[in-house]
Amino acid sequence: MRHDFTTLSEFSKILQQLPEFDRVAHDAAQARNGQLTKPPGALGRLEDLAAWYCGWRGDPQPSISAPQVIVFAGNHGVTAQGVSAFPAEVTAQMVSNFQAGGAAVNQLAKSVGARMDVHALALDSPTQDMTQGPAMSESEVVEALLVGWHAVDPTADALVVGEMGIGNTTSASAIATALFGGTATDWTGRGTGVEGDALTHKAEVVARAVAANPQCQSNGLQVLRCLGGRELAAMAGAMLRARVLRIPLILDGFICTAAAACLHVAQPGALDHAVAGHVSTEIGHGKLLKELAKTPILSLNMRLGEGSGGALAIAILQGAVACHSGMATFAEAGVSDA
Amino acid sequence: MRHDFTTLSEFSKILQQLPEFDRVAHDAAQARNGQLTKPPGALGRLEDLAAWYCGWRGDPQPSISAPQVIVFAGNHGVTAQGVSAFPAEVTAQMVSNFQAGGAAVNQLAKSVGARMDVHALALDSPTQDMTQGPAMSESEVVEALLVGWHAVDPTADALVVGEMGIGNTTSASAIATALFGGTATDWTGRGTGVEGDALTHKAEVVARAVAANPQCQSNGLQVLRCLGGRELAAMAGAMLRARVLRIPLILDGFICTAAAACLHVAQPGALDHAVAGHVSTEIGHGKLLKELAKTPILSLNMRLGEGSGGALAIAILQGAVACHSGMATFAEAGVSDA
Repeated sequence: MRHDFTTLSEFSKILQQLPEFDRVAHDAAQARNGQLTKPPGALGRLEDLAAWYCGWRGDPQPSISAPQVIVFAGNHGVTAQGVSAFPAEVTAQMVSNFQAGGAAVNQLAKSVGARMDVHALALDSPTQDMTQGPAMSESEVVEALLVGWHAVDPTADALVVGEMGIGNTTSASAIATALFGGTATDWTGRGTGVEGDALTHKAEVVARAVAANPQCQSNGLQVLRCLGGRELAAMAGAMLRARVLRIPLILDGFICTAAAACLHVAQPGALDHAVAGHVSTEIGHGKLLKELAKTPILSLNMRLGEGSGGALAIAILQGAVACHSGMATFAEAGVSDA
Repeated sequence: MRHDFTTLSEFSKILQQLPEFDRVAHDAAQARNGQLTKPPGALGRLEDLAAWYCGWRGDPQPSISAPQVIVFAGNHGVTAQGVSAFPAEVTAQMVSNFQAGGAAVNQLAKSVGARMDVHALALDSPTQDMTQGPAMSESEVVEALLVGWHAVDPTADALVVGEMGIGNTTSASAIATALFGGTATDWTGRGTGVEGDALTHKAEVVARAVAANPQCQSNGLQVLRCLGGRELAAMAGAMLRARVLRIPLILDGFICTAAAACLHVAQPGALDHAVAGHVSTEIGHGKLLKELAKTPILSLNMRLGEGSGGALAIAILQGAVACHSGMATFAEAGVSDA
């Protein structure tokens, strides 16, 4: 298997040679689960999460001690169309805030004991305005994919990728429309807070972006290039690297899931090493998770991005794995089985 | 305000003199929230949880550094009616498992950095069989309430109370039926795993228990005495102590919520310092939470009890408070507001 790439075609080859779930470790985990001091199934979703985690780690009794949260930031030429409630300068300002430890995702990463990294991608060079043609050239998207690819700590044992990029819900809505059809209004939501006429306008911009890039619509990686952004491509690169490294991935919100969806369409099963951390209130997110057949762990009306919902869900995965690996069996504890 | 009691009547007096929510601290917290570096409302439920927490702590910028999980265990005379999939000896066996650190709730408490305490209440003296009359005398229920009352660490800054007691979903179902009406089958579920004829039988036992205690049906504390158990009463005592100490409370599952419901009926508003940690798959739990007007934080198909769902939800409350108190404001971070 290749561990690096210089073209989209090489990236695509990695996608076609993915390491698979370790069914032996999974089955051993299931056998252990049946012996733990609780009624069968009483931990519900936690039991499924633990078994899934064991299968991807190839370890029937693992722990989570080194989770990583990576935030990627990029700027979008489509902001020229007036699609966001915030000015584009906020992307760079928030990057400083991430670096200083002042954003929501910093607090959440710290709360679960995760390492946090921030990667700003060419903020002074926004992507092209996707209503005029492709957002990125092939070399630009490959460069961004590589940033994500190299950002993953190979010693991490769980990964969340988040983003910051004024205009990037517009990008995610265009991706979803191109990948899964329906109208732009089906997939276009409030983002950081646009409403009424501004929301109608945003959906029109999404429709124009999709129409301006007809060549990409059946190809996940071309959708990522033409309608994505550097931070979305970096997220996709990190997601694929996590798969190659067998690091279980927790998806965040709408934008993160749109990046994931590009990989999913490019290669069905490419997101098998991922769970959905939460479902946001952004209109397209729940629908996108359904397309990926992912059931969210949390549903707390969040809509911030940054990796915030994914980082919070690390706590649930940690709890699931702690129960699985730390509990006594009926025999060990001298407890009578049913 | 009294800080101790020797009779149910004295306990009831404390219930009528509860410390109230600190609206000044809450409003200061809301003002701070509006300045944090995120779009308004983008952290969803986390923002509500943080403001609620601030109000109960009387602090607009608090932290959670000393959560406590307490597990109370009791035995139930009604197990003579064959209502559980597990034998009554399992209560004491699981207490040993809690003490040795081998149960699910031990792992979850550790995962969120919570202190965990275990209190076994007279396991060798099960409550009376409630199908024959009251489960406890007044002195028995007061003794159990006091165990809970004194179990709360006054320095704790969040509390979860959990339970272990073979037969106690039967008790909780009888409490719910007596407090809120409907038929026993509406409130009787699988517990640790009864199904089919055994479940039908369990509902009949619940109906007989309610019928055998007609004197208690309009009085929350009498319902707790007649249809509860020592661990349920201890949970109620701890919940009230938490209110007196202004320690925010996270409810666990069906049995914990049934104990809470007795306080709620005895004194509306008595559970204002509580949030619902999760909703379990036990049939009556969601309905009980609706009666208490509590929206669960988590919904993960858990049904274990022990405080497990509540302990897991501590992580969410910690995340909410960490964001609220740790994030930078727009001014501090130099980020442009919308």
